[in-house]
Amino acid sequence: MIICGSGLFGLTIACEYTRYFGKKVLVIEKRKHPGGNSWSEFDSQTSIEIHKYGSHLFHTSNEKVWKFINQYSQFTPYQHKVIAKTNSGFFNIPINLMTLSRFFGRQFSPSEAEAFLETIKSPILSPVNFEEAAVSQIGEDLYTTFFKGYTKKQWQTDPKQLSADIFKRIPIRLNFDERYFSDVYQGLPKEGYCQLIENMLAHKDIHLALEVDFNSIKESVSANQLIVYTGPIDQYFDYRFGQLGWRTLDFEIETLDVEDYQGNSVINYVEAEVPFTRIHEFKHLHPEREYAKGKTIIMREYSRFAGREDEPYYPIASSANRTILRKYRDAITHLPNVFFGGRLGSFQYLDMHMAIASALTMFSNEIIPAAEKLRHEGI
Amino acid sequence: MIICGSGLFGLTIACEYTRYFGKKVLVIEKRKHPGGNSWSEFDSQTSIEIHKYGSHLFHTSNEKVWKFINQYSQFTPYQHKVIAKTNSGFFNIPINLMTLSRFFGRQFSPSEAEAFLETIKSPILSPVNFEEAAVSQIGEDLYTTFFKGYTKKQWQTDPKQLSADIFKRIPIRLNFDERYFSDVYQGLPKEGYCQLIENMLAHKDIHLALEVDFNSIKESVSANQLIVYTGPIDQYFDYRFGQLGWRTLDFEIETLDVEDYQGNSVINYVEAEVPFTRIHEFKHLHPEREYAKGKTIIMREYSRFAGREDEPYYPIASSANRTILRKYRDAITHLPNVFFGGRLGSFQYLDMHMAIASALTMFSNEIIPAAEKLRHEGI
Repeated sequence: MIICGSGLFGLTIACEYTRYFGKKVLVIEKRKHPGGNSWSEFDSQTSIEIHKYGSHLFHTSNEKVWKFINQYSQFTPYQHKVIAKTNSGFFNIPINLMTLSRFFGRQFSPSEAEAFLETIKSPILSPVNFEEAAVSQIGEDLYTTFFKGYTKKQWQTDPKQLSADIFKRIPIRLNFDERYFSDVYQGLPKEGYCQLIENMLAHKDIHLALEVDFNSIKESVSANQLIVYTGPIDQYFDYRFGQLGWRTLDFEIETLDVEDYQGNSVINYVEAEVPFTRIHEFKHLHPEREYAKGKTIIMREYSRFAGREDEPYYPIASSANRTILRKYRDAITHLPNVFFGGRLGSFQYLDMHMAIASALTMFSNEIIPAAEKLRHEGI
Repeated sequence: MIICGSGLFGLTIACEYTRYFGKKVLVIEKRKHPGGNSWSEFDSQTSIEIHKYGSHLFHTSNEKVWKFINQYSQFTPYQHKVIAKTNSGFFNIPINLMTLSRFFGRQFSPSEAEAFLETIKSPILSPVNFEEAAVSQIGEDLYTTFFKGYTKKQWQTDPKQLSADIFKRIPIRLNFDERYFSDVYQGLPKEGYCQLIENMLAHKDIHLALEVDFNSIKESVSANQLIVYTGPIDQYFDYRFGQLGWRTLDFEIETLDVEDYQGNSVINYVEAEVPFTRIHEFKHLHPEREYAKGKTIIMREYSRFAGREDEPYYPIASSANRTILRKYRDAITHLPNVFFGGRLGSFQYLDMHMAIASALTMFSNEIIPAAEKLRHEGI
């Protein structure tokens, strides 16, 4: 088997395949390091673990996923919280009872907050865009402060042009829970993401080839070889039905001579005037670790549309993209031995636990049967 | 061996003793249930676990303690947070960067908050009481809002009459960490404290006798029998050197027909005018559990001085009490086969993990040698 891409999707398949079949697998990776966007590195000066592609938080409520990943690392009990910096002060994000009480200068009980939200919601029955979806749930003031500028920065698009579906994903909590995720299992790899990735790769039957582009070997792969392809689906087909749109992120990293820059691992800068969307300060992800005194590392995050040479981060769910994607998905059905997965291969935003879950499912439901079939055919 | 009292101190000794010596142990307990103040019960109507003696949060940074207690229960990843309800709104407690920023209407970075605190501290070099210790660290305004009324309610004593040491224990955080405890290991017993206690008692060599007062069997115990006594130390000696002072708590429990009363497991009511100190809402301790819809259970907590018939909760660290305690501690030295421990036996406030840690230490350092000595003497 050949796996193109060493992100968590590809590595999960690699681990399961070698375990189940006791056979070798080749993982090829375009970058200089494995692990996809979950890769991290320890800064030698400060001992701070830098998440190279932005803060990665592990969280899942899927026990199978949690058991799987715990084979490769212990996890700290870190629970992620995000602070929003607005023009009227700091607030907990997602919006919770503290945010509501503070924002409106009240002391709401859960039921009072629920009743109050009813009075401030805009009466829009069938919201047709992000802005309408937002104001129909939380009213004009909360929307303007927390979402209008931030969303515009994040998507480089007027919220009136964005789908109403996007807002549905943002929870409003009528209690004081200020965790960013509500999942049952949360934590960070004790020895870092880099070590977790190395541990997944440690099996004797997994061979990793870095800085190899799939295009350079594509022609030489036998048609009877199973391939798991986790690169961009449009690239696989040489963009024959058009190019799918992504957003990309730019990061600006800085080492500062202060013990603590912002007091939290992630602060969202929701004001439209601030050019970046958020600042990561990685040392807060691991309060249990020892660091060089008087130093910290921060990373500013900027969001924009991706060109073909940029790293694709977030798929843009426009109707044009959906039409293109449908054509590629049809084309896939003619390739029984090639399996498309992961964020890029499926054109779907997948959190780490979702990448692992979908890899585990694909392995059981599709790859095992396909491998058995090839074996029966005597290949 | 006879253990008087089935709180976590006594049970830890019981578990260690039976494991190490393979011998029987009798645990006697005055109450109708074991487990001391960590005992809980599930309410049959709502399925909510009620902590009978106030919310008990398990937290420790001691790996030995964590391993010990994990033998008897799995733990949820619950991290405790406390909200303070003040006359100027809700705030995170302990005071953190959010509290400071909100209270002073600013957006402090950690270093700005540190510098600001310097400007508001009262210039008292050697504080002689609680109030002076507080204002010398956080200034008049924060003290008045968060500590003055609450402390007075909690101790039924003017904060000017309380020791400066008490304030030293209250952390001020210059980051957005809003956990109540900073410990490495935190969580709650998955099946409840009652089940944890039952699991500790499940060993075939541990025999539990409920509703037995130590006084009723005291005379019949052989002088060569090892005794672990976890009752009040002054009571053991029939108050011969005087009575030690405790604070007690009164609880008022109520089942309400609302889904969520206050949105958090514990809210501290810091205003002096509110008669209770805090309200517990137990369902928030286990968000992972299923409950009867539309119902919750709350428990108001009141604090006052304990009379002899009241449950002692918090030892009062006055100089009069220290003098009395010293006399009892001297008397103990003449009783080589009786070991005093736990909160009541040592007249020390012990969190659960501290009770377990001190029991483990006492077992290794004192009880094993004493038991070996008795054995060598052929008894």
